[in-house]
Amino acid sequence: MKKFVNDPSNFVHEMMEGLVLANPQTLKWEKEFNLVYRADLDPNTKVPIVQGSGSGHEPAHIMAVGKGMLDCAAPGNVFAAPPVDVALEGIKRMKSDKGVLYIVNNYQGDKMAWEMAAEMAEAEGIKVGSVLIDDDVAVENSTHTFGRRGVAGNFFAIKACGAASEQGADLDELVALGKKVNDNVRSMGVALTGCTPPAKGEPIFTLADDEMEVGVGIHGEPGRRRDKLKSADEIIEEIFEAVHTDLPFKSGDRVALMINGLGGTPISELYVMYRKAAHLAKSKGLTIVRNYVGEYCTSLEMAGASLTLLKLDQELEDLLAAPAECPIRVF
Amino acid sequence: MKKFVNDPSNFVHEMMEGLVLANPQTLKWEKEFNLVYRADLDPNTKVPIVQGSGSGHEPAHIMAVGKGMLDCAAPGNVFAAPPVDVALEGIKRMKSDKGVLYIVNNYQGDKMAWEMAAEMAEAEGIKVGSVLIDDDVAVENSTHTFGRRGVAGNFFAIKACGAASEQGADLDELVALGKKVNDNVRSMGVALTGCTPPAKGEPIFTLADDEMEVGVGIHGEPGRRRDKLKSADEIIEEIFEAVHTDLPFKSGDRVALMINGLGGTPISELYVMYRKAAHLAKSKGLTIVRNYVGEYCTSLEMAGASLTLLKLDQELEDLLAAPAECPIRVF
Repeated sequence: MKKFVNDPSNFVHEMMEGLVLANPQTLKWEKEFNLVYRADLDPNTKVPIVQGSGSGHEPAHIMAVGKGMLDCAAPGNVFAAPPVDVALEGIKRMKSDKGVLYIVNNYQGDKMAWEMAAEMAEAEGIKVGSVLIDDDVAVENSTHTFGRRGVAGNFFAIKACGAASEQGADLDELVALGKKVNDNVRSMGVALTGCTPPAKGEPIFTLADDEMEVGVGIHGEPGRRRDKLKSADEIIEEIFEAVHTDLPFKSGDRVALMINGLGGTPISELYVMYRKAAHLAKSKGLTIVRNYVGEYCTSLEMAGASLTLLKLDQELEDLLAAPAECPIRVF
Repeated sequence: MKKFVNDPSNFVHEMMEGLVLANPQTLKWEKEFNLVYRADLDPNTKVPIVQGSGSGHEPAHIMAVGKGMLDCAAPGNVFAAPPVDVALEGIKRMKSDKGVLYIVNNYQGDKMAWEMAAEMAEAEGIKVGSVLIDDDVAVENSTHTFGRRGVAGNFFAIKACGAASEQGADLDELVALGKKVNDNVRSMGVALTGCTPPAKGEPIFTLADDEMEVGVGIHGEPGRRRDKLKSADEIIEEIFEAVHTDLPFKSGDRVALMINGLGGTPISELYVMYRKAAHLAKSKGLTIVRNYVGEYCTSLEMAGASLTLLKLDQELEDLLAAPAECPIRVF
């Protein structure tokens, strides 16, 4: 295992500590439950938004905590749903007169933890709303999922709901907005390599030197097929087509286009892929209003990438363009 | 070779095309010389800043073109200095009454190309100033270098000189400022794997499953030694110590601290390392005024990381905090 790691059982905890040390003005860390939340937030001033899924997908979702994004992250261990008590503590920490929204990707473990936590929180008098994300068009059911998986499209739910919450949207409006994002977002990914969870110490799957997994899940779940490695353009043609025809997107649509790296793929390759995706979008009559090239939802150090298209209306365009802050600092 | 690539000889060109397609409002692309430069800049309004070194280190330096950063990038092929005519075209494209500044890392090929280009530009009446970066403390001379190598510390020269140029600094002031950054910045890196330039198709070096290269160069140049892989904390202790004692940094110093990923290392591991580095800085009496955790200067998909410390004064603090724009969009 070639990683920068100490005791693997402390990996997530040490990452969280590093994140909070790097952002002392904006983030607080609750060590016992390993929550991270906004230092500046008075939860009664808006509907707080919380998310918690397995770690190993960074920057999703712990590095999306900030004004106009998430208010609290309650992560589990690497590729493991957060325990119910962690999810519950996340909701209670964000307790607000206006209710609390949670966003969850469609994995059985995550859904169950959050549904139970929400039920317990509601028994304590906290109003809870939810947004479920299942944007991955690759397969209908998967290793840990009934129905489609939730992947990088989750980012757009965070961004849109985070902005709307800052602008005063109430809980019902945020639930409806999150559903609108999910109804209009589609993704698919390709892996060139597996990845190694620190505590496991071995790759979750392996691919031969000339192989790729088309439609891979972000925990290495099998996709549509294993195939011989193709050119960047051929790969993008296939996943663009799969995503494009699924909604389906139509000529004249205004869209956001994301090329997301899965952790081990350099940004140079992501821009090579964006180039092809932008050409395809144009040929289909799509107008790319905003683009996102980089790492948004990863699988540790997996070499791979995913493509996400989000169909926009004026409300979503405005929300994507709204100010937001989060720990990832470029400058 | 497990990469998203088409014809390897077009890799850099296609990456540049993708970058400019993703930033149509802010970047222009000169295809013939493969330059990228600011779309909004009138070069006579400030001292333009240009940089060009080998590709494969993205986001350095083509993705640092923007207001308050670089004004033009003139890259070479992967791990290859730009040809003299490309460097010259970069300077001429930025021609300004106020002169042109170039920033270059200390590699023989890059230095030679820029020195020749500067001489030719001056023969055409363009005043040219330069900043040389050699922040890598690992070794005194290296495969492609007399003296120390220039690595991720280069970012701080771009950021400081970019901000000062926007604020009206003249060419001599920028040359002095760049020298001040270089005099106060120190870096060292560690590789856990090699990397594969697309056109080469094979790794530039290999490491056994239990090995690391301590003090690696950003083109895979040998460092201080090859060693058994150690824990994240032990690795950071060693490179922090090497960097800290070199300047030397002293108790009471205010610093910027960067943990830079080399391309294949996930950001989760970078934060585990930042955690240890922040503790060490505190134990040495350093105050971390700004921190940078992410990818700034990579080696394609190499798994590895580097640590950079920059000693700050009020001028540098203000310049690092000044507004800047560049193509890497988080939101």
